[in-house]
Amino acid sequence: MEYIARKFDIPTLTGLSQKQMEVHLALYEGYVKHVNLIRAKIAKLKESDEDYAYVINELRRRFSFEFDGMRMHEYYFEQFEGGAHGAAETSALTQAATEKYGSWDAFISHVKEVAGTRGIGWVVTYYDPSGRTLHTVFVNDHELGQLAGLPIILAVDLWEHAYMVDYVPAEKSSYVDAFLSNVNWSVAERRMLEELV
Amino acid sequence: MEYIARKFDIPTLTGLSQKQMEVHLALYEGYVKHVNLIRAKIAKLKESDEDYAYVINELRRRFSFEFDGMRMHEYYFEQFEGGAHGAAETSALTQAATEKYGSWDAFISHVKEVAGTRGIGWVVTYYDPSGRTLHTVFVNDHELGQLAGLPIILAVDLWEHAYMVDYVPAEKSSYVDAFLSNVNWSVAERRMLEELV
Amino acid sequence: MEYIARKFDIPTLTGLSQKQMEVHLALYEGYVKHVNLIRAKIAKLKESDEDYAYVINELRRRFSFEFDGMRMHEYYFEQFEGGAHGAAETSALTQAATEKYGSWDAFISHVKEVAGTRGIGWVVTYYDPSGRTLHTVFVNDHELGQLAGLPIILAVDLWEHAYMVDYVPAEKSSYVDAFLSNVNWSVAERRMLEELV
Amino acid sequence: MEYIARKFDIPTLTGLSQKQMEVHLALYEGYVKHVNLIRAKIAKLKESDEDYAYVINELRRRFSFEFDGMRMHEYYFEQFEGGAHGAAETSALTQAATEKYGSWDAFISHVKEVAGTRGIGWVVTYYDPSGRTLHTVFVNDHELGQLAGLPIILAVDLWEHAYMVDYVPAEKSSYVDAFLSNVNWSVAERRMLEELV
Repeated sequence: MEYIARKFDIPTLTGLSQKQMEVHLALYEGYVKHVNLIRAKIAKLKESDEDYAYVINELRRRFSFEFDGMRMHEYYFEQFEGGAHGAAETSALTQAATEKYGSWDAFISHVKEVAGTRGIGWVVTYYDPSGRTLHTVFVNDHELGQLAGLPIILAVDLWEHAYMVDYVPAEKSSYVDAFLSNVNWSVAERRMLEELV
Repeated sequence: MEYIARKFDIPTLTGLSQKQMEVHLALYEGYVKHVNLIRAKIAKLKESDEDYAYVINELRRRFSFEFDGMRMHEYYFEQFEGGAHGAAETSALTQAATEKYGSWDAFISHVKEVAGTRGIGWVVTYYDPSGRTLHTVFVNDHELGQLAGLPIILAVDLWEHAYMVDYVPAEKSSYVDAFLSNVNWSVAERRMLEELV
Repeated sequence: MEYIARKFDIPTLTGLSQKQMEVHLALYEGYVKHVNLIRAKIAKLKESDEDYAYVINELRRRFSFEFDGMRMHEYYFEQFEGGAHGAAETSALTQAATEKYGSWDAFISHVKEVAGTRGIGWVVTYYDPSGRTLHTVFVNDHELGQLAGLPIILAVDLWEHAYMVDYVPAEKSSYVDAFLSNVNWSVAERRMLEELV
Repeated sequence: MEYIARKFDIPTLTGLSQKQMEVHLALYEGYVKHVNLIRAKIAKLKESDEDYAYVINELRRRFSFEFDGMRMHEYYFEQFEGGAHGAAETSALTQAATEKYGSWDAFISHVKEVAGTRGIGWVVTYYDPSGRTLHTVFVNDHELGQLAGLPIILAVDLWEHAYMVDYVPAEKSSYVDAFLSNVNWSVAERRMLEELV
């Protein structure tokens, strides 16, 4: 089984250029390619007469980087599909966000605040079914700090490649604003619902 | 809302002493305590007149370590509950393991192989619903290398504290054998089923 | 004592625009600011009646990121000072590079090869006085993978912000070529000499 | 060139058993072996017809873990050689420690405080020649958070394997006390002097 790069139906965005999206989508495809490449190289190394056990384990360690690079970008791009759309007042996501952060606007402010964390990575909002609450954290790179086993509701890419076609790093908060203005929150609501069924 | 340390009904184990389990459970409770502590300290810092935005974001970055330390130990200890019990030949887990690794025994060999990865952390088997396949990776510490958004099926603790009451590091593979001989695979099968419903 | 941002006398570069350098130097100054900020916030927290021991230790953990962000950029920018200048055939650096990699050109090829490592960070060449040899490694972020206690001879910034004003990520190797064409190797030779005295 | 495991002339220690030291020294030799192994495997992979560029770069990324694992243990064990010996009141180290932390005792308290950082790794005191000051930080694993290019003055191993033959994790501070009671501070003073010449 091989992973195949998904195609995303991304509309014209506000504050994010088509060139930015093309550059970004090409990087996504690189992750998919390297997820498959790691598995192919491990298979090759296993055929060798040389003892490559150490090498194979190190490749496996790196699998998380490439896999999460692939998967996080899939969460990211599908949030644009269907075009900007607000969250429904009565949705499970709106309720959970309101319960945790005080109000929907306070949740959005919170996301922006966490996006101010120094370094590159992702702002990720998860739902914890056992704690019945949302958590919003900053994940370094793609794989350093993911909450174990929790489903992902929102993923904001804060690698410099996500915005540097359109913005310089000092304008990162403008990029976050642009990102948020384009989110189809129905996508996040659907992710949340799948966890509650 | 505060997280509360779970109590586990752990039977007498083969090759893992009661003192080892007591030491380990005490560490687990430390993670729960610090998950709550981070949130309490952030609340305190927000009340201050001093600008602690940077400090708060750094605490949030560390939340993943404490949260995953808590959650991974919960996956670990509950695998002992009910006592050693083999996987059912017809279970979804057995089928997925056989499909990915060739046979159940090959899956177990694979877990042992990944457990030979140098460093401390966890061997974790996840199920990827979109790729419809299992992945077994080595996670450093608790939070470095978790697969994004994937449910966890099996968690093997490979921190030195998990076995050094009973074994020295050179005997790590004996610990892994001991661990595996005590697993109640029904627990892992149940986790898998929850993802397939 | 506070760290003060250094001023670099950077000539016109080939393949790296003035805007790129300005954006990059501004980021450097952010690291210096945050090195000082961490120490100031720790001092403030110590004055509090609240027990902030955990918070203070987490700030200390992050000090490495900010300090290395500051210091690595200092290594980086001072390599441009004085303008492009080749290494002397008889220098200790040339000799060590030839001994380790076969020839000066092979050393340069090696740097380019390591620069092809996936992810963001730095290519760093160190000199190990006890092994009497050079090591060239890829360091993630600024602080993940630094060789312990070794003096730094060459530092190539491979964060996306180092080139994305002028290049897209797919052109990373063109940036590395541009960087190498601007290096004043006397600076690296001087660093090496200081270790041999 | 291959790295060779050093032999340390370690006297009988207070609060650290001979078995603890034997277990620990065996782990040190594992790091030396794997530093050499990485280089040997890279050489083998380069001979192959298969394109292993990605694999080789991932091995290089892991080199830092093994190299720092080797080097940090060398700093650690040589601190016991010659037996416990206090720092001289007039030494450059005592002066720098007093200037930064207020007094020698305050420096020791500071080391103990940083040793309370959660997680496994090292407390490391460095000397920064350009800032003319000491920095004491917590390094995760062996290689995550090393200060770039700075010489190491003191290294305290806080992996669980460093003490779990003699102590349980809840007694970590007793181990740190035991460690400090055995340090030959002349070794640290000599490291400091080498930087000032």
